[in-house]
Amino acid sequence: MTTTGKDLYPSRVSSEPNRLMRVDPVVWGAFDAVPDAQLTQEQLENFRDDGFLWLEGLFGQDEIESFNTELQRMARDPELPESETSVAEDATDTLNVVFDIHRRSTAFKELAKDRRLAHAARQILNSDVYIHQSRIDVKPALHEAGVFWRSDFETWHTEDGLPRCRTVCALVALDEINEFNGPVMMMPGSHKTFVSCVGDPEGNGQVEAAGGMPLGTPDAENLKHLMEDGGIVAPKGPAGSLLLFDCNVMQASASNLTPYPRASVVYVFNSVENAAEAPFAARSPRPDYVGSRDFTPVSQL
Amino acid sequence: MTTTGKDLYPSRVSSEPNRLMRVDPVVWGAFDAVPDAQLTQEQLENFRDDGFLWLEGLFGQDEIESFNTELQRMARDPELPESETSVAEDATDTLNVVFDIHRRSTAFKELAKDRRLAHAARQILNSDVYIHQSRIDVKPALHEAGVFWRSDFETWHTEDGLPRCRTVCALVALDEINEFNGPVMMMPGSHKTFVSCVGDPEGNGQVEAAGGMPLGTPDAENLKHLMEDGGIVAPKGPAGSLLLFDCNVMQASASNLTPYPRASVVYVFNSVENAAEAPFAARSPRPDYVGSRDFTPVSQL
Repeated sequence: MTTTGKDLYPSRVSSEPNRLMRVDPVVWGAFDAVPDAQLTQEQLENFRDDGFLWLEGLFGQDEIESFNTELQRMARDPELPESETSVAEDATDTLNVVFDIHRRSTAFKELAKDRRLAHAARQILNSDVYIHQSRIDVKPALHEAGVFWRSDFETWHTEDGLPRCRTVCALVALDEINEFNGPVMMMPGSHKTFVSCVGDPEGNGQVEAAGGMPLGTPDAENLKHLMEDGGIVAPKGPAGSLLLFDCNVMQASASNLTPYPRASVVYVFNSVENAAEAPFAARSPRPDYVGSRDFTPVSQL
Repeated sequence: MTTTGKDLYPSRVSSEPNRLMRVDPVVWGAFDAVPDAQLTQEQLENFRDDGFLWLEGLFGQDEIESFNTELQRMARDPELPESETSVAEDATDTLNVVFDIHRRSTAFKELAKDRRLAHAARQILNSDVYIHQSRIDVKPALHEAGVFWRSDFETWHTEDGLPRCRTVCALVALDEINEFNGPVMMMPGSHKTFVSCVGDPEGNGQVEAAGGMPLGTPDAENLKHLMEDGGIVAPKGPAGSLLLFDCNVMQASASNLTPYPRASVVYVFNSVENAAEAPFAARSPRPDYVGSRDFTPVSQL
């Protein structure tokens, strides 16, 4: 597999971090009302300006209950492969993440196809979309570790080979998101800047960045710049809320210090016109369950 | 050194956690207006019920600036002993904590004596007070690790030998405290319960509790119970705000994910009638800079 285009977002190829202008649109389609629209003009404008859109309580309680039932079923599935679909963050028995949920569960395949998710993504990206990654994240209870700042796109570009910023994430909250259970934090407007991270010019993607942080970790100076521009926000609301966010928005999450785990369903919708190529800064692509090479449009799943 | 009284708050002496009623008052003095009062009746009642009192913007900007100047002076002091007064949480050069500030700095000795702090503590504890510990905490910038739930009193009792719950902490914010820079989280009302932690019946205080957590870490079931009773709050406000809190309130803090460190001055005022004895569950007391054996009243410093 070879990279067919120029690398518009070089990262992990230099020992110095850098800050680049995003060259791609955020909203690829029209802003005025189109037939069959899922999002309003105002919603599209907010998404363009902030890099995300928070739709509180979009799913009903009965829907959320059925997703939670399905999650419990999957968690008990003896065939849930430890190595490929579940990653333990600590030594507890807690389920932390299940990947590939649109392939492993009919209910979560149907949710991916739900127009509140897929059609919003199609409208933003102005094309059909396929699933680059799907997962359920569970933030374990009583856990003081958070997740550091990152742009998902930086990883998907360097390690999975997505060439352009034409990818939208949809997160459905299966539990209330509050101030204390590790809400997603985002820097509004940060998606307009690509932070090129330090890395290994050999491109094997295996060495650590400075300070023991994983490769793809943005540097402090650029984070400060982005935060001074747009601050930080952390949407909160009931289970059933939907967070749509651009692949390049700078995001993090704090600790979940409550005694209750917090689960989210996440789909990464990539434009079919932006299908994965060879990784831009890694020897070989990551496994299919984190970076899919099945480009079947969601509408045909 | 021997323990002179019965152990009213046994902890780290059993392999099972336990939940005990606090036998001590929270506010030891009178609630109605007394001559020379620092806190109002309502403030005392709130402190009694919640276990803390948040006084927004109590110190002026000029005062905070002078404290910050003094902090910078101390941080540059070549005599700041790494081993005893400063504890690095990570490998950065960041200053994380300076202990013994009331002995190392005239300005911070004067702040300890300020009636907004010391007299509030005297009024709550209905006695003169001495300083059990003083420090400046700096929560490093861009740091995804938080601090897990704990009762300070559990440590001060087991390791330093404070016999009773008759100790008040005063925290002066040197920077704004907001949702994103790791505010102190507290469970209101939790100070009325003493969570007896699992430990080493040999009392050497050196082994780890379950799950790799340090000794003195409360168990999940009791944390859940306390949280269901009172929830969680995290006071926020400008630099110069004062947090007074009971020694036994259950507290934690989330990550500081902003690019700015956040500093606080903390004094632990213990009643002179509650002076440290032998540790209740450790072979020997901790060093003087974390658990002072100098019981000189603050008024005589």
